[in-house]
Amino acid sequence: MQNFSYKNPTEIVFGKGTIGAIKNLIPRERSVLFLYGGGSIKKNGVYAQVRAALKGLKVSECGGIEANPLYETCLRAVAIVKKEKLDFILAVGGGSVLDAGKFIAAAACFKGKDPWEILRQHGSNVEAALPVGAVLTLPATGSESNGNSVISRSATQEKLHFFSKHVFPVFSVLDPETTYSLPAKQVRNGIVDTFVHVMEQYMTYNSGAPLQDRLAESLIQTLVELAPVTLKEPEDYEARATFMWTATLALNTLIGCGVPQDWSTHMIGHELTAFYGLDHAETLAIVMPGVWQYKFAAKKEKLAQYGRRVWNVKTAREAIAKTEKFFHAIGMPTRFSDYKIAASEAAEKVCQRFHDRDDAFGEHQDITASAAKKILLSRA
Amino acid sequence: MQNFSYKNPTEIVFGKGTIGAIKNLIPRERSVLFLYGGGSIKKNGVYAQVRAALKGLKVSECGGIEANPLYETCLRAVAIVKKEKLDFILAVGGGSVLDAGKFIAAAACFKGKDPWEILRQHGSNVEAALPVGAVLTLPATGSESNGNSVISRSATQEKLHFFSKHVFPVFSVLDPETTYSLPAKQVRNGIVDTFVHVMEQYMTYNSGAPLQDRLAESLIQTLVELAPVTLKEPEDYEARATFMWTATLALNTLIGCGVPQDWSTHMIGHELTAFYGLDHAETLAIVMPGVWQYKFAAKKEKLAQYGRRVWNVKTAREAIAKTEKFFHAIGMPTRFSDYKIAASEAAEKVCQRFHDRDDAFGEHQDITASAAKKILLSRA
Repeated sequence: MQNFSYKNPTEIVFGKGTIGAIKNLIPRERSVLFLYGGGSIKKNGVYAQVRAALKGLKVSECGGIEANPLYETCLRAVAIVKKEKLDFILAVGGGSVLDAGKFIAAAACFKGKDPWEILRQHGSNVEAALPVGAVLTLPATGSESNGNSVISRSATQEKLHFFSKHVFPVFSVLDPETTYSLPAKQVRNGIVDTFVHVMEQYMTYNSGAPLQDRLAESLIQTLVELAPVTLKEPEDYEARATFMWTATLALNTLIGCGVPQDWSTHMIGHELTAFYGLDHAETLAIVMPGVWQYKFAAKKEKLAQYGRRVWNVKTAREAIAKTEKFFHAIGMPTRFSDYKIAASEAAEKVCQRFHDRDDAFGEHQDITASAAKKILLSRA
Repeated sequence: MQNFSYKNPTEIVFGKGTIGAIKNLIPRERSVLFLYGGGSIKKNGVYAQVRAALKGLKVSECGGIEANPLYETCLRAVAIVKKEKLDFILAVGGGSVLDAGKFIAAAACFKGKDPWEILRQHGSNVEAALPVGAVLTLPATGSESNGNSVISRSATQEKLHFFSKHVFPVFSVLDPETTYSLPAKQVRNGIVDTFVHVMEQYMTYNSGAPLQDRLAESLIQTLVELAPVTLKEPEDYEARATFMWTATLALNTLIGCGVPQDWSTHMIGHELTAFYGLDHAETLAIVMPGVWQYKFAAKKEKLAQYGRRVWNVKTAREAIAKTEKFFHAIGMPTRFSDYKIAASEAAEKVCQRFHDRDDAFGEHQDITASAAKKILLSRA
């Protein structure tokens, strides 16, 4: 086991009818930026519940945060925060709204000239942030209980992440019933995103951390069991609640304690979203099997363990096949051809970008530009 | 799944050679009460490492905290804190020292007349506490990352617990190498204590929380695998590190989120320690199989699931037998006769005390005085 530090200060308030709790979670003297996305919260009743809970506080609204939230949009929100002297960010929505909220919270306190530097330096230059609270309506990114945020810049087709301990939400309210009205595609995406988050922290090599292995496998086993149920029966509370809590624990930094991590699937996937506009989860489902094949020699023991414990199969190859089959069964394609994208073009573009940035990823830092190219070429 | 709130603010610093980190974890302006136990930390080098890390801070020492820490001893420490105007408690040792540190931290800020009221009211009257930091040297109680504390009073043969969010350690340093010198009996006790902590939060009834079930089973599976290894090879780092992290996660409040909890084994066990001086874990190993037998009808489905997933057996009865066999294999007795204690006497004493307090425990609150009597009579 590797040495590690672990601290997660977010207060989770979980369950039916819990949105009203934000009344007691935001100090009365705060002025709130109420951030949300495309307006689905106005249809499913969440907006009204939040508004009722915020009664008596000074509140400014900012809707219209995009999936893959845009830097440009976030800057407009930062301007509102500064102009109206707001000092609390309440992000209501999925991971995109939460990620935007974190960036806005950090950018509002940023002393440097250009807030894009927060992303370019992956958060190492964040020294303070406004407090962020969240009401989560889409289980997927784990953003409700970590310090991560991913922001896109339309002008340059870039998608970058940052991490800071200062942007862990001070609280997150998770009411599974708010997810009943989600489109099936978003639920499918959330399942795959959660699945891959676990795998980025698990599918590496044996580092003498058998408990972490079993915790990761528990999350995957649970996800495999609940996926068909929650897609078929959106209002099955048990399945939806379990999905929501699984997604949080998949990326609240716990299962990554003391173990090597990969994250090359995410790094390559971000580029595919930036270039082609594919959903985040769609890119992960294309890339991950390719990473596993490309790093087969290094990952085959862990792949075989995963196959035995989760799928009851004997070999690493079968474990990969089972994973793709699971994705297909929940309606998630795993090849470029499913989107009529030429793998050769995608491979070239991503290779060029990694080359320009001199980036390398993976648990051995050996997923370089040329490795990414080979991985993507194998996913035609 | 039941509604829940979850917040655990403790910063864990885990790994080889991490004790020096406390230098940066305690603010320089603090005055520290350095609390420890019987002096084993002076033999294994931990004392010297802590002293080196505290250089430059104002420090007062208080050694001699007992296993099953005494209220009377804690009050002497509170007097030192007040007299010397100390404002940080650093507890170095096992769960007993940490529990004492938490009680001292709460008692030092307690506005009421009699600090025993903290325990009598189980912490509901704790409004503030001094910050507590910990260096853990014995994996067992989970006290390093929760708000629990158990204190004994010699004058009245009482052993009571309290919980407060104010006494979660602000940090805990866990260096598995500090456990190499532990006597085998303490390691055995720690394994059983951890095992039973998981079971108190798992062995109840199905509440629609399959993820929590799997997480609990992961902790148990890991413990079953590592127990013989770490008892035989105290300096096997992987096994000792895994044991240490398993013990923390067993009672950092995570696996209990959203599920019913039992805790009747602990409540009965505390009385046996108070009356007979048995080690805490020794009492748990006697009581738990009795609780399972007594509540067999209510627990049999979960017992069978546990049997299938952890022991690869088919029935609830076999699961109980396997558990006792595991305890025996690591040298832990499970009957009163092993200690030459008359079960009838123990049953009478505990029954009387529960009756006097009008207490009832268990996930259905039906482990009353008479139930406790029947349970203990079955453990002759």
